[in-house]
Amino acid sequence: MQKGGPAAQWAGDAVAGTDRTRTAVTGGPAVILVVPQMGENIGTAARAMLNFGLHDLRLVAPRDGWPNPKAVAAASGADEVLAAARLCDTEEEATGDLNAVYATTARLRDMIKPVLTPAAAAEDMRARHQRGETTGILFGGERAGLSNDDAVLAHALVRVPVNPAFASLNLAQAVLLMGYEWFRAGDTTPGTVLDLGVTRPASASELHGLFDHLESELDAAGFLYPPEKRPAMVRNLRTMLLRAGLTEQDVRTLRGVVTALARGRPRRS
Amino acid sequence: MQKGGPAAQWAGDAVAGTDRTRTAVTGGPAVILVVPQMGENIGTAARAMLNFGLHDLRLVAPRDGWPNPKAVAAASGADEVLAAARLCDTEEEATGDLNAVYATTARLRDMIKPVLTPAAAAEDMRARHQRGETTGILFGGERAGLSNDDAVLAHALVRVPVNPAFASLNLAQAVLLMGYEWFRAGDTTPGTVLDLGVTRPASASELHGLFDHLESELDAAGFLYPPEKRPAMVRNLRTMLLRAGLTEQDVRTLRGVVTALARGRPRRS
Repeated sequence: MQKGGPAAQWAGDAVAGTDRTRTAVTGGPAVILVVPQMGENIGTAARAMLNFGLHDLRLVAPRDGWPNPKAVAAASGADEVLAAARLCDTEEEATGDLNAVYATTARLRDMIKPVLTPAAAAEDMRARHQRGETTGILFGGERAGLSNDDAVLAHALVRVPVNPAFASLNLAQAVLLMGYEWFRAGDTTPGTVLDLGVTRPASASELHGLFDHLESELDAAGFLYPPEKRPAMVRNLRTMLLRAGLTEQDVRTLRGVVTALARGRPRRS
Repeated sequence: MQKGGPAAQWAGDAVAGTDRTRTAVTGGPAVILVVPQMGENIGTAARAMLNFGLHDLRLVAPRDGWPNPKAVAAASGADEVLAAARLCDTEEEATGDLNAVYATTARLRDMIKPVLTPAAAAEDMRARHQRGETTGILFGGERAGLSNDDAVLAHALVRVPVNPAFASLNLAQAVLLMGYEWFRAGDTTPGTVLDLGVTRPASASELHGLFDHLESELDAAGFLYPPEKRPAMVRNLRTMLLRAGLTEQDVRTLRGVVTALARGRPRRS
């Protein structure tokens, strides 16, 4: 499984944030657009595919024919996906080589098929790919989505959990979410990373040195007063500073701050 | 937490798949666009927000001013989000009321802050909202993303794991993924659902009846031959049929199929 690598830029420019020296992600499910209408949506779907390492685009009877210059214009650089796209006359032709097909749909069907979340579908696809199977995801056209006849050949249905009061995703957004879940299911990026760069976390003795320095200056300034309150005040200060996860550089900076403040303002003459 | 409700339509039409009788999802983090450039991206970001129940949009010094008719045209019906959007002069103004701010960024920063995946950030935001805190997510402009000065006020950075060889997401796609993860973190939709509708799974005795019927007809047809192979052939047939998770309706259908086939083709006279 590939590492997550650098995350997305928010830039509109397709090369922003892209590092072409990094290994490109390959493999994954085929994306099958069934009678897509607008070339723009085919292009943005191709871009979303490549964002998450998907390259196998199949087009079933696109309304405006193929190739479509509007798709290229909208792909923002994902030309390799469009160039490799397979044009098919029927869904059967587009899915014939696949071991498992997932149909993205919002509607309840009168067909008894498992309905998966995108995350569950991604796990299922990962498991299949790991045992050498191939998979594909069906997306319906912009106007009406997949018909029952389109979906009947699918092994499972996929529905995105979404705000029921505003449930419309466009085609490329649906492709983006499925690609994201596919990528995520194989991504090894830890949930949280703290990159300390060249520095390192402060040692306990460095922290104790800071505490002693601060507290002695605060004693001298009469801040830790009255004496019966001092222990709690010191505990709170130390807890606060420990919560910040200070580096050794932070400790040196704060000791400089304490020294500068303790020196006081130069008196005007 | 809201249920997932009906999943997205892939239709371009913003009302497709939408059930306005369903409870709208509310709450969640503010989406803060810092010096966004194109009105279209503000509109599609608003649509992505509403798809996942986010309503609090804040715009810091949008390049083309505000309101922006291009945003309305691109929002595909998410007008309520645009109408309620707050125009701010500075990021400080836009984030002043929030307890935690997350900066979406692709670049490594020379600031030592935790870097979260969207999923980890969503869990963190859910935990904060459950204890009554408010949160917001910063998104930079299309061209350059967030600057270090933009990100320094954030409690954490968020990076989307993406194909390192094609890492560019546009602004609305970034908003979509963060909204999706927020929604997902509170969504209770089971990973897999099998909706049987009006029917029910077949009982064991109904299945046994089907097996007996099929096997007796196959014995009569001489299919389960030779006798030493019969037990394995029967096991395979039964295993295959059990794997299909048949309903009582399916069993009745299959028994009809067996009867019809066993009757054989009418001989031509």
